[in-house]
Amino acid sequence: MTDNLTLTVKCPDKPGITYAITGLLASVGGNILESQQFNDRESGYFFVRIEAEVPGGIPTIENAFAALARNHGMDYTISPAGQPMRTLIMVTKESHCLSDLLSKQREGRLPIDVVGVVGNHETLRSLAEFYGKEFIHIPISAETKPEAEAELLKVIEERDVELVVLARYMQILSEDLCRKLAGNAINIHHSFLPSFKGARPYQQAHIRGVKLIGATAHYVTADLDEGPIIEQDVVRVAHDEDELELMSKGAEVERQVLSRAVRWHAEHRVMMNGERTVIFS
Amino acid sequence: MTDNLTLTVKCPDKPGITYAITGLLASVGGNILESQQFNDRESGYFFVRIEAEVPGGIPTIENAFAALARNHGMDYTISPAGQPMRTLIMVTKESHCLSDLLSKQREGRLPIDVVGVVGNHETLRSLAEFYGKEFIHIPISAETKPEAEAELLKVIEERDVELVVLARYMQILSEDLCRKLAGNAINIHHSFLPSFKGARPYQQAHIRGVKLIGATAHYVTADLDEGPIIEQDVVRVAHDEDELELMSKGAEVERQVLSRAVRWHAEHRVMMNGERTVIFS
Amino acid sequence: MTDNLTLTVKCPDKPGITYAITGLLASVGGNILESQQFNDRESGYFFVRIEAEVPGGIPTIENAFAALARNHGMDYTISPAGQPMRTLIMVTKESHCLSDLLSKQREGRLPIDVVGVVGNHETLRSLAEFYGKEFIHIPISAETKPEAEAELLKVIEERDVELVVLARYMQILSEDLCRKLAGNAINIHHSFLPSFKGARPYQQAHIRGVKLIGATAHYVTADLDEGPIIEQDVVRVAHDEDELELMSKGAEVERQVLSRAVRWHAEHRVMMNGERTVIFS
Amino acid sequence: MTDNLTLTVKCPDKPGITYAITGLLASVGGNILESQQFNDRESGYFFVRIEAEVPGGIPTIENAFAALARNHGMDYTISPAGQPMRTLIMVTKESHCLSDLLSKQREGRLPIDVVGVVGNHETLRSLAEFYGKEFIHIPISAETKPEAEAELLKVIEERDVELVVLARYMQILSEDLCRKLAGNAINIHHSFLPSFKGARPYQQAHIRGVKLIGATAHYVTADLDEGPIIEQDVVRVAHDEDELELMSKGAEVERQVLSRAVRWHAEHRVMMNGERTVIFS
Repeated sequence: MTDNLTLTVKCPDKPGITYAITGLLASVGGNILESQQFNDRESGYFFVRIEAEVPGGIPTIENAFAALARNHGMDYTISPAGQPMRTLIMVTKESHCLSDLLSKQREGRLPIDVVGVVGNHETLRSLAEFYGKEFIHIPISAETKPEAEAELLKVIEERDVELVVLARYMQILSEDLCRKLAGNAINIHHSFLPSFKGARPYQQAHIRGVKLIGATAHYVTADLDEGPIIEQDVVRVAHDEDELELMSKGAEVERQVLSRAVRWHAEHRVMMNGERTVIFS
Repeated sequence: MTDNLTLTVKCPDKPGITYAITGLLASVGGNILESQQFNDRESGYFFVRIEAEVPGGIPTIENAFAALARNHGMDYTISPAGQPMRTLIMVTKESHCLSDLLSKQREGRLPIDVVGVVGNHETLRSLAEFYGKEFIHIPISAETKPEAEAELLKVIEERDVELVVLARYMQILSEDLCRKLAGNAINIHHSFLPSFKGARPYQQAHIRGVKLIGATAHYVTADLDEGPIIEQDVVRVAHDEDELELMSKGAEVERQVLSRAVRWHAEHRVMMNGERTVIFS
Repeated sequence: MTDNLTLTVKCPDKPGITYAITGLLASVGGNILESQQFNDRESGYFFVRIEAEVPGGIPTIENAFAALARNHGMDYTISPAGQPMRTLIMVTKESHCLSDLLSKQREGRLPIDVVGVVGNHETLRSLAEFYGKEFIHIPISAETKPEAEAELLKVIEERDVELVVLARYMQILSEDLCRKLAGNAINIHHSFLPSFKGARPYQQAHIRGVKLIGATAHYVTADLDEGPIIEQDVVRVAHDEDELELMSKGAEVERQVLSRAVRWHAEHRVMMNGERTVIFS
Repeated sequence: MTDNLTLTVKCPDKPGITYAITGLLASVGGNILESQQFNDRESGYFFVRIEAEVPGGIPTIENAFAALARNHGMDYTISPAGQPMRTLIMVTKESHCLSDLLSKQREGRLPIDVVGVVGNHETLRSLAEFYGKEFIHIPISAETKPEAEAELLKVIEERDVELVVLARYMQILSEDLCRKLAGNAINIHHSFLPSFKGARPYQQAHIRGVKLIGATAHYVTADLDEGPIIEQDVVRVAHDEDELELMSKGAEVERQVLSRAVRWHAEHRVMMNGERTVIFS
């Protein structure tokens, strides 16, 4: 068993925080392998992500760290380094994001453990099953939304889901569910936010005549398309490409952006800073 | 003297248009050097840009072409290939776009003839004059706007200006002036439109926490920040960059995007297609 | 049935070529939908790609075009527009390019008809079969190379293969086979050629400390890694990424670059110009 | 006076290094504002860059730090944060990099203090002088090289030059001079190294038919075009662009890449790791 662990800390900034953390690690013979720190002068918050080798691993430091955290008002996480994150993927009919996540995960290039694929249609069952993932069909309509979301929550709890990925899931989650998943659910929006919120962003982009289209991976919040942005990217388009061609080029950007966001989240590289994110990539 | 010319044509699409144009060129022994064509199935318009070698040059074909154009309802331009476009640059205090345009023009990398630099402040006079360009100071305030714009129009007319470039000119032109300059004035907006219209886009971008910032070169219209887009580009930003750093990175994108837009326009590579542009780059 | 067709022509440049071609199309009531032309002043060659609507389709013009081509020494192709190209994909053990091509093709985003997947190992059989493609196992060793290539050629002939895609096929084709497939076989090389030819390019890139890594799709020639380049792209890497991480990021670029090259080739957008390519994208 | 300082440390990696450094800072009431660390498992070296607020500034810690450094075999630098680096720019006839560096420096976007511009031709004197920089003409030929380099070294010493920037300086420095400037001289090479070393890289790129061209900023070493790479970037080119157009597009990339490299170096963000660089950007 490896004794490597990943530590993230967020707390109000004050002198000596890094010294306190590194001191705790040094006191148990730990060795820091990688470290990134950000002190936000605007919000007054301190953020750090550390990968360290600690003899004995997490048990060696967890009590001492809990005490330290109490003293300094720290939000923190400690996780075994490289441990795949238990992830539930939610889809509707479009396959490109699901296929990308599942193939990368099989290639060993995405540190997630996909514990299930939820679809509100049956369309993508065979794809999920080809990759050895259980497909759970939860149909949803305006009337059945409360029951469907309750069923979803049950799946999330029973499977110990740590991360929910909306991989072109074409339903809006209720405010209540958004709150429950806060910070643990990632959505891919098919535009370069804040441009082209809402429906049919590629059509909007085509009509406006933009020269680049994009995609945005963000945390899900009750405020649609307004959650903290994790990653964005764009691709060049030309005057002779219609909405359909924009959708096709955009699909390629969506899969890249979503898989990067999922990887960073699963590696504990993303931290929330108010409405923004800190990315230790 | 070269007999090379650049021809652009826009007209309602119908069979045989290309044949009619190439036939006219062939009938005078012309040779097509480069050609790009776009038939917009949505608007029903046909666009073509041709560079051709025509013995005798423009006089050989201008009458015949005028007749052809009448028959087919063509908007067209014929220009000597490579002829620098007579350009007026308008500035306020920020130098990065002006310095970029003037240095590229001196390096022989921008096919424009800068016939003057208009500033509503004196700040950039020495830069303009270093590059051998006359600097015209036209101060402007809410009260003097009509007079200032009249003076500007006089400069434009007297110097036979073909293109006006707003190189971070921090004044809004009147609706009337916008109409007069329609299709012949390019503005650089310091955001990736349609995101962050209006004032302080870098501040808006910082607050929203986007991961890419950009710039947009567009034709000036009375509808602020809504003109047809010519070119856009973006650059990656990180959580630890504040508004000032965004402005600095953004300045770099602004100069690139503006100089590309100016070059394409000056080479007759940009054609208006309703609210969008066709770029034969 | 559609009467749309795609026409590509390459021939020595001289005045009147475009007029002759557009005249032939006009004479049968054809309408040009899209056209791009390039006259290479260095090589003296003329290249054009035209999409046209021709009443009656190819039979209407094929004889007349053959005559025209003889007169002007044209290399040309005429194909029904949008017809998927019959494609054979060759693989070894790495799945990322195969999975990308097959998923895009199923999503309707790649105009190819995959008529089989050849592997020198069995590893990727299930992936091919999941997408409904026949998997043909042709093992190969130094001793069996002639027989293996003969078997491959038989597959190519029997299935009327128009395009062979080496999707991380880790074998070098014989000179003889390269010649037979000239212009109809695309390879993906996992570096930004001409940097890092040969084996383990990501290791070479890591040792040299480059800040961007890339991938190159090129036509297969007997001269390894020297074939005409169709497409290239790059991704940024940092000092803390080792060879394994470069491979993972590179895999993402490989799939994008290869699928773009395949699409352009299948849409007859790529023409050979000596050791270079013309891309009408 | 600010008490902010920038600290960089490189030493053999072992547990407790970060703790020792942060402990020293904490012991004098210092506050870390920004910190990035890299432990290279291949070379066994540890690298860190810290920006800290230290009451009393450098004098408060310099003795204690010198002692710490001796104990741990550290290479280190301590500099007042934001202090512009004393820089000498060397040029020949091409202006685009010089004009970019000087205009950015005047705009306050490059933390350098340009203490002179050396040219082996007089061509760029007026540009340097417009920006208020002394121009020193040091002509050079095969015969006068030793004297010219001696004169250059004198300029470097007399003006306390910390950084030499070869901004398209078209002369090869002697091995001896390279050694003297090691780690303190940056060159811009007009290709994406290691592709197209040596002369006329754009011509080489055009002949090979690459789809992207690039530029590379690297430290100067006696081994031409082989020094540690600081930054690289690329731009897309098309089949219809000749060597001249590649040069023009490339010039744009050269100026961006060079100015980024200069900024990072001047902010002490670049550290040497054998033949590679660590960039704390």
